[in-house]
Amino acid sequence: MPQTAGINRRIVLASRPKGAPVAENFRLEEAAIPEPGDGEVLLRTSWLSLDPYMRGRMSDAPSYAPPVGIGEVMVGGTVSRVERSKNPRFPEGALVVAYSGWQDYAVSNGAGLALLDASLATARPSLALGVLGMPGFTAYMGLLDIGNPKAGETVVVAAATGAVGSAVGQIAKLKGCRAIGIAGGADKCAYAVSELGFDACLDHHDADLPTKLRAACDKGIDVYFENVGGKVFDAVLPLMNTLGRIPVCGLVSGYNAERLPEGPDRSPVVLGAILRRRLRVQGFIISQDYGARLPEFIREMTPWVADGKVKFREHVVKGLEGAPAGLIGLLRGDNFGKVVVEVA
Amino acid sequence: MPQTAGINRRIVLASRPKGAPVAENFRLEEAAIPEPGDGEVLLRTSWLSLDPYMRGRMSDAPSYAPPVGIGEVMVGGTVSRVERSKNPRFPEGALVVAYSGWQDYAVSNGAGLALLDASLATARPSLALGVLGMPGFTAYMGLLDIGNPKAGETVVVAAATGAVGSAVGQIAKLKGCRAIGIAGGADKCAYAVSELGFDACLDHHDADLPTKLRAACDKGIDVYFENVGGKVFDAVLPLMNTLGRIPVCGLVSGYNAERLPEGPDRSPVVLGAILRRRLRVQGFIISQDYGARLPEFIREMTPWVADGKVKFREHVVKGLEGAPAGLIGLLRGDNFGKVVVEVA
Repeated sequence: MPQTAGINRRIVLASRPKGAPVAENFRLEEAAIPEPGDGEVLLRTSWLSLDPYMRGRMSDAPSYAPPVGIGEVMVGGTVSRVERSKNPRFPEGALVVAYSGWQDYAVSNGAGLALLDASLATARPSLALGVLGMPGFTAYMGLLDIGNPKAGETVVVAAATGAVGSAVGQIAKLKGCRAIGIAGGADKCAYAVSELGFDACLDHHDADLPTKLRAACDKGIDVYFENVGGKVFDAVLPLMNTLGRIPVCGLVSGYNAERLPEGPDRSPVVLGAILRRRLRVQGFIISQDYGARLPEFIREMTPWVADGKVKFREHVVKGLEGAPAGLIGLLRGDNFGKVVVEVA
Repeated sequence: MPQTAGINRRIVLASRPKGAPVAENFRLEEAAIPEPGDGEVLLRTSWLSLDPYMRGRMSDAPSYAPPVGIGEVMVGGTVSRVERSKNPRFPEGALVVAYSGWQDYAVSNGAGLALLDASLATARPSLALGVLGMPGFTAYMGLLDIGNPKAGETVVVAAATGAVGSAVGQIAKLKGCRAIGIAGGADKCAYAVSELGFDACLDHHDADLPTKLRAACDKGIDVYFENVGGKVFDAVLPLMNTLGRIPVCGLVSGYNAERLPEGPDRSPVVLGAILRRRLRVQGFIISQDYGARLPEFIREMTPWVADGKVKFREHVVKGLEGAPAGLIGLLRGDNFGKVVVEVA
């Protein structure tokens, strides 16, 4: 269903997934293009970001944000163009970072909209959804503010070629740390080392992951940037050094889980390690905990990206209709880099 | 075996416990009283502190401190009198806080010794092992530095009539918080409320603990001062508010455990709560993380104790030979208040 003039295509949540999402959990609908009122703008989606947190919004389990209702448009960050404007702050033709969700058009009163930096708008607007957007900001604040890495320390991050993990590893290197990545498959691991500059990258499919991680982290682990959980966390925990820090921004390995792993109950092991090695384990939600510090991030990260000190890789899905398969694949680890949907 | 002139009685670790310690894990020995060399002092133990961490020292499982060796004197904090001095900093007859362990006499070169405050020395020297010593300092720093409680917030602590928990609850009240205790038995719970000023105190033997805790914490829990772990932690976790803090200073409910609880593995539940409610969970060891801040604690806590704003209760064991049973009972929760052994 390609886009038709005057029609707003939108992808709604058709049903809540049991385990991994499937195509049937989504439905592509058509609606009239909404009309902006006074003070409002009509936005046309250029790029839609796909991110692991979206799995949480598909579920009605308690979380930090309300779920998407059945029949409602899937949420998501976008780079959008101002198509019509009744708000002087956002002129027609301008590119903005928005939260329009999985649809061609949305109306906004301007709250939460941000004009795209001019240089970024001409270069690669989708970066505002990746390395210079929410995932990069997550990496930057979680690593630097909670992780507080010191030169010479060892930083470990999984999903090392993903939007967040790749930024974590590269920022760790810029701060003088040893960066060890974990990723899915030989191609991603090779890329993490040769292109992103990780000191080593291990394949999480490897049954020997705990042994190999121990060998790669011969001085232990000072900061583990947690975005996956599960067996990676289990391999990391015994290697954490005294006074180590674990910022927790995601647990993607468990997002599709329908039940807890079989026992024994390892929660006392986790608490025991926190006590005996005096670890700090802290969850954060970038938008809610660090919104006010976005300018600081943009100021430091933009030249790093411009100078090639922080590299990025995008996994581009063509067309809004590809978004469901894109998210399903992202949760499986099929993507290689930050997943963005090129909508228009 | 009462004390004999010229003899140093000492209690050594005879064997490592399997599960809960038993009397046979300890052995009372006699040795010659050691001779102080140049710069050294001979200390005679007046009071010996018994504390939950000692269970950890009896085990050779990896921990933050090396284990007591088989045949070695059990470690422990003491209030000791300087019996002979070849160190001008510590005159004969002075009382000092020391780490002489479970014995009548010890020689020290002065490292780690602290002269007892004069008013404390005349009033009740054993307080230097309790509310004005390591347990009080643990409560103070863990609650205020990691817990960071704000007036009106809800603070929960277990072992609420113990050395640490009683101080946590009373300091929380002094800071304008609501303090909810958990303790073992109706007597302790009544004492926590009527004497210590907790807003409520629940019995951990109660099968309805999760329900009653939820009712007592009708605005959720902002700070959980963790010193027990196990079923108390499990009851607390679902009630933690967004941005809650959990300082972890001990996990006494598990110290005697020989194996992990039966499954399912709840460690993903713990990490999931940390992520979704953006909790900060942080272990600390008072002596290693906060040693430099002892004067600040003494300055604020001493008048609180002198003015009766922070009350204390001691559980006094008479005689060094009672120390093994005292520790065994402490780990079972038989004590009511801070356990000290009156040695001489």
